[in-house]
Amino acid sequence: MRFFSDNAAPVHPAVLRAIAAADSLDTAYDGDRWSKALDERFSALFETAVRVLWVPSGTAANCLALAALCPPHGSVVCHREAHIQNDECGAPEFYTHGAKLLLAEGEGAKLTPATAAAVLDRQRYDVHQQRPHALSITNATEYGRVYTPAEVAALGALAKERKLGFHIDGARFANAVVSTGASPADLTWRGGADALSFGFVKNGGMNAEALVFFDHALADATLYRRKRAGHLLSKGRYLAAQLLAMLDDDIWLACARGANAGAALLAQAAGARLLHPVEANEVFLRVTADEAASLRAAGFDFYDWGVGEARLVVSWNQRAEDIRPLADAIAALG
Amino acid sequence: MRFFSDNAAPVHPAVLRAIAAADSLDTAYDGDRWSKALDERFSALFETAVRVLWVPSGTAANCLALAALCPPHGSVVCHREAHIQNDECGAPEFYTHGAKLLLAEGEGAKLTPATAAAVLDRQRYDVHQQRPHALSITNATEYGRVYTPAEVAALGALAKERKLGFHIDGARFANAVVSTGASPADLTWRGGADALSFGFVKNGGMNAEALVFFDHALADATLYRRKRAGHLLSKGRYLAAQLLAMLDDDIWLACARGANAGAALLAQAAGARLLHPVEANEVFLRVTADEAASLRAAGFDFYDWGVGEARLVVSWNQRAEDIRPLADAIAALG
Amino acid sequence: MRFFSDNAAPVHPAVLRAIAAADSLDTAYDGDRWSKALDERFSALFETAVRVLWVPSGTAANCLALAALCPPHGSVVCHREAHIQNDECGAPEFYTHGAKLLLAEGEGAKLTPATAAAVLDRQRYDVHQQRPHALSITNATEYGRVYTPAEVAALGALAKERKLGFHIDGARFANAVVSTGASPADLTWRGGADALSFGFVKNGGMNAEALVFFDHALADATLYRRKRAGHLLSKGRYLAAQLLAMLDDDIWLACARGANAGAALLAQAAGARLLHPVEANEVFLRVTADEAASLRAAGFDFYDWGVGEARLVVSWNQRAEDIRPLADAIAALG
Amino acid sequence: MRFFSDNAAPVHPAVLRAIAAADSLDTAYDGDRWSKALDERFSALFETAVRVLWVPSGTAANCLALAALCPPHGSVVCHREAHIQNDECGAPEFYTHGAKLLLAEGEGAKLTPATAAAVLDRQRYDVHQQRPHALSITNATEYGRVYTPAEVAALGALAKERKLGFHIDGARFANAVVSTGASPADLTWRGGADALSFGFVKNGGMNAEALVFFDHALADATLYRRKRAGHLLSKGRYLAAQLLAMLDDDIWLACARGANAGAALLAQAAGARLLHPVEANEVFLRVTADEAASLRAAGFDFYDWGVGEARLVVSWNQRAEDIRPLADAIAALG
Repeated sequence: MRFFSDNAAPVHPAVLRAIAAADSLDTAYDGDRWSKALDERFSALFETAVRVLWVPSGTAANCLALAALCPPHGSVVCHREAHIQNDECGAPEFYTHGAKLLLAEGEGAKLTPATAAAVLDRQRYDVHQQRPHALSITNATEYGRVYTPAEVAALGALAKERKLGFHIDGARFANAVVSTGASPADLTWRGGADALSFGFVKNGGMNAEALVFFDHALADATLYRRKRAGHLLSKGRYLAAQLLAMLDDDIWLACARGANAGAALLAQAAGARLLHPVEANEVFLRVTADEAASLRAAGFDFYDWGVGEARLVVSWNQRAEDIRPLADAIAALG
Repeated sequence: MRFFSDNAAPVHPAVLRAIAAADSLDTAYDGDRWSKALDERFSALFETAVRVLWVPSGTAANCLALAALCPPHGSVVCHREAHIQNDECGAPEFYTHGAKLLLAEGEGAKLTPATAAAVLDRQRYDVHQQRPHALSITNATEYGRVYTPAEVAALGALAKERKLGFHIDGARFANAVVSTGASPADLTWRGGADALSFGFVKNGGMNAEALVFFDHALADATLYRRKRAGHLLSKGRYLAAQLLAMLDDDIWLACARGANAGAALLAQAAGARLLHPVEANEVFLRVTADEAASLRAAGFDFYDWGVGEARLVVSWNQRAEDIRPLADAIAALG
Repeated sequence: MRFFSDNAAPVHPAVLRAIAAADSLDTAYDGDRWSKALDERFSALFETAVRVLWVPSGTAANCLALAALCPPHGSVVCHREAHIQNDECGAPEFYTHGAKLLLAEGEGAKLTPATAAAVLDRQRYDVHQQRPHALSITNATEYGRVYTPAEVAALGALAKERKLGFHIDGARFANAVVSTGASPADLTWRGGADALSFGFVKNGGMNAEALVFFDHALADATLYRRKRAGHLLSKGRYLAAQLLAMLDDDIWLACARGANAGAALLAQAAGARLLHPVEANEVFLRVTADEAASLRAAGFDFYDWGVGEARLVVSWNQRAEDIRPLADAIAALG
Repeated sequence: MRFFSDNAAPVHPAVLRAIAAADSLDTAYDGDRWSKALDERFSALFETAVRVLWVPSGTAANCLALAALCPPHGSVVCHREAHIQNDECGAPEFYTHGAKLLLAEGEGAKLTPATAAAVLDRQRYDVHQQRPHALSITNATEYGRVYTPAEVAALGALAKERKLGFHIDGARFANAVVSTGASPADLTWRGGADALSFGFVKNGGMNAEALVFFDHALADATLYRRKRAGHLLSKGRYLAAQLLAMLDDDIWLACARGANAGAALLAQAAGARLLHPVEANEVFLRVTADEAASLRAAGFDFYDWGVGEARLVVSWNQRAEDIRPLADAIAALG
């Protein structure tokens, strides 16, 4: 059983069905009826008018958002362990044409107003430094922690006070929604967010993510930037259809609920081994090399995460009965 | 019946089947077995060892190739009507970080050694101008013309002589292969090409194109650039599987054969109205506004292409019986 | 005697004196009293409040202006023979992060509303093309032609109508002012210009050009871009002092007057050999290779400008008696 | 008396004389005889064949060097407090088109092989991260510390082992040469350096720095990049002449010797207040706000450097008798 990454999981059957159902001639790029339905559909979900662009990857979503919020001579505050800093090969720098990421601290890869402000206060605000233009957080974080609506709002208030745009990398936004029980609105624009990378691929999608703009003005130039980056796919309806299918019947929530529940099972088994509270679908464990080897020998695959640490990620399609054996094996480590 | 664009057509059933068949857990990004099979599979097709990267759009393929061939302070010779110049919103400039396209002339959007050399000879080759580093052609061209192996080789020889990399935008490469009856090898590396954007999406694919490197050294940095551009999709197997499926049983050739044949039917009907010889799946016609209106009134959709001109594109899935009515209607215009 | 370029001439004595006079300790960068005096001084000259930044080269001035007026996904209309297109090694693309130059026609490297509109009308204004954001002209042009206030205003009106920023490359602005007898204001903001690269180096300066913003909002981000490009020199007072010295006693006008007068002498001698009317300090001649050789044998240096053509540039410090021998030699060619 | 910055000092009389002496017509850009003399002159100084380009700022020198050493998808290891990270408004990101600076630790802004290796070892070396391509150090550092030849060589060995280019920001290289008594060769290429930003402006120059390439292959593309960045000034001889003048009679060493001696005087007075050993021309002191105020009241100007800390920089032209009063005032603080 593999617990490497939710990236490696198969797609939800509804997504495959939606793709097949979209398989008729329509208009190219985003002129088709599926793409045109996105704004309305996501607006309903977010309880406010939003503008939505599909893109084929979370990196594209994140970096188009950052490019909309920050000029080349500006900077973006994010966590030292943010995906945009460590896992996108400089895509933020590519899309923003060289903006700088300013790295802040925080337990479990979570920023707080205090840690973000510490970075902001260290800047000089003269022309010799790239002035902060945006704040970017990840919810759920790279360590599977979630921000509550109150925490989002506190960071949103800081962003507003400091005149920063506010972006949320929601590669695992669904897991955060399920975990907090909060509404998508409360986790985003009501807390001051301007743009959300709303992830579907880790949650049962195939190759469509939604870039959601709460600040509509940001969408216009992004249409050009998306094209210019090669992300305006010519048969866009196969992406739009995926997103719509995931929203139908709240499949996106069901998938995330399953993955979070699986992680909770593992967390319970792991007890004192846990490196971070388990709030979404990721579990970080303290394990010796021998223990890791024994788990692997028993057929469980996962990534080492530094020395003596392991990362287990539960995917949308892993059921309790799939996970139980690993939970038992972890518990049996003592 | 719509003749707008092969971009708008549905996908080949084999592609849908391949996607469904790839729907099991595997490794993320391009570590899966489908992605890993590409080099060998395309090497067999091209009769030489090649390196292949999937990307979700032709723009990404083209511009990653150009970035591999041309530094920011260099320039690329292409046709004045090339897709990279007119239809990618500056993606070449984005990916190359500001290289300049030098625009050459040529009937039917085809470059010749003479027209390319004319541009090259006009440059000054001092530090005040961006030195030419690459040559890029489109086969089939934006006007549905094809380059023969001899024509490719003549341009390849020029490129070699002038120390230029040589890229082929093959968004409709399949149509050129079918049209010329030449082998993929003869239309590319045997004629000196370093990189090919091998298009599948216009030819029955969904969202996977193949970037083929004949010069292997170009592939290494491109792996980073693809990631950095957000084109290393996390579930890459769904792209790789499409490409493999299209190669199986020569589906890519069958699709192109069908589209070219349909265009030939229209060409026959159009006779003296043709603006360009029809060699692939595109037909450019002289039509008055009234004639265009009458065709549309009869249920045929297509793009105007300047004043008094129309473009008709035949897709892989349009059969002779689908096309006959339009051919008849064109013939009936007199 | 050398007629290669006004770039190669020595500097005006007042510039050397000003540099020596600025040679005391003051604040670094642009915090010194010379730099701080620029806005007021140029505002007086332009009869309106302007913001001025010194930069050490015309390329820097031009491209900072373009970056202020055009986003990476936009385009700039300029003449096919503009310096920004042919002589800056892609600096516009570097500074704008990949905007595209759209090349327009026009006698003597002069744009007209008609030739600029022809380019604008050819664009598609969809996301597949870089939307025009700016218009850039050169006054005096690369062929020594000048725009009158009325001509500037006609282009300014077009720019306004099409919502384009309007930049003037004034590497030889002084020569245009002298030639037209118009005020700096009439040749710029009264005609709709947003930014002017006001050249001093070709006109007796050493290494300081003035980037003048009529639209003040453009200056703010430019301060960051200047720094980021390495053009915020640490001892800026030596640049600012040059500019102030050139304005003192209208030295900039005297220098340009001298150069224009010298070119007029040559023009008179050249008669029917002239390729362009001589309106500033450049003279383009029809000469055979033998004739060119004979002039060179007589001690006159200049550039060939294509086959059978020569360019002669008169510098600020070349007096009538310096030029007379060349005029006579040209006349003697018959 | 001002101790803000060596950037604010006047220029050495020999520089003014050299500029005046260069004030005759010659070839534009870098075709003049002063520019052409640079390679030979600096080669003699460095005891090896080097290629040298003048540029008008240290930021330009640094970032052209980094662009030569690191691709956009790469990264550069430097100290957390390096000038390139904190004081150039993202110029490294601009010139490299988005490379990332990886920040290492080290006392007094000095890297050690251990602190640099710690950063290098933390990287993952897969396509999801920007692979390290270069190492950049500052000698003397931002805190006035110097690297000895042995320390440079140790870092050079690390760079070689990890296949990194090695750049030295020598904005105060002269101060390091004087401080260590080492030869320019021992402090650069003999220790493995590929490129040096050799600063003159802080040391009595006006607006010319030397970018020295020990790896000649790096110079070729840099010629294009310099032009493209607007740093190929048209009257380059006024820059080249400054550099040559500073090398004549070892003026550059005399200037640095004076500044270092002045700093040593202040260091002696400061005693236990020193935050860093004083090895070049900068002095960092612990002072209370009251103490700082009293020094300022006595006519001494300087920058606060964080809370309770002050930075004093001695310039080339401040003589012992100029500095003594400040030394006495510091000593008198007790």
